[in-house]
Amino acid sequence: MKNLITQKCIPCEKGAPALTDAELAELKPQIPGWEIIEANGIKKLRKAFKFKNFEQALVFTNKVGELSEAQFHHPTIILDWGRVEVIWVTHKIRGLHLNDVAMAVQTDSLAV
Amino acid sequence: MKNLITQKCIPCEKGAPALTDAELAELKPQIPGWEIIEANGIKKLRKAFKFKNFEQALVFTNKVGELSEAQFHHPTIILDWGRVEVIWVTHKIRGLHLNDVAMAVQTDSLAV
Repeated sequence: MKNLITQKCIPCEKGAPALTDAELAELKPQIPGWEIIEANGIKKLRKAFKFKNFEQALVFTNKVGELSEAQFHHPTIILDWGRVEVIWVTHKIRGLHLNDVAMAVQTDSLAV
Repeated sequence: MKNLITQKCIPCEKGAPALTDAELAELKPQIPGWEIIEANGIKKLRKAFKFKNFEQALVFTNKVGELSEAQFHHPTIILDWGRVEVIWVTHKIRGLHLNDVAMAVQTDSLAV
């Protein structure tokens, strides 16, 4: 099993294959709490993180921002008072790549 | 006309009246580009701000965060690569208060 906590984002070209359902099912145990959502035929990974207040939610947002800048891969982050929702997808392939699962694992590590 | 750029958020109790449509129409010219959206009968103010990259979008997110902490009133912020969407609403009154319009004006001043 790949160690996704240290996995660097692989540059991903248009046309690269998205993860299959079977591959996603195999990887899913590594990202507890992450939901696979689908909109307009595009699968994404989504998870909501709870915090005591706005400030802590903003600190987490910045940590995720720093990670995404380091990996050249950026999520959608929805910041509310005491809550941050993070959504990973690879727009170039209109779906989920191993990169997204790795980023989900690394996002979890920032919330501890 | 009230100077909303310097207006402090007024503590707002449950049961305080929301802005009427007439009041909103009168205030609207002060918040160009802000859209009044409605979901589940709750009116909100929404605007999307564009940036050159993720870093600048994150800087703006932090500025809005700082403003909202100072005013004890917090928006929903949707952060994407090069784009920040800000949504103001007063949850206690399930609608829009003058505070939200003031915060919209002040959000605009941070994007300059």
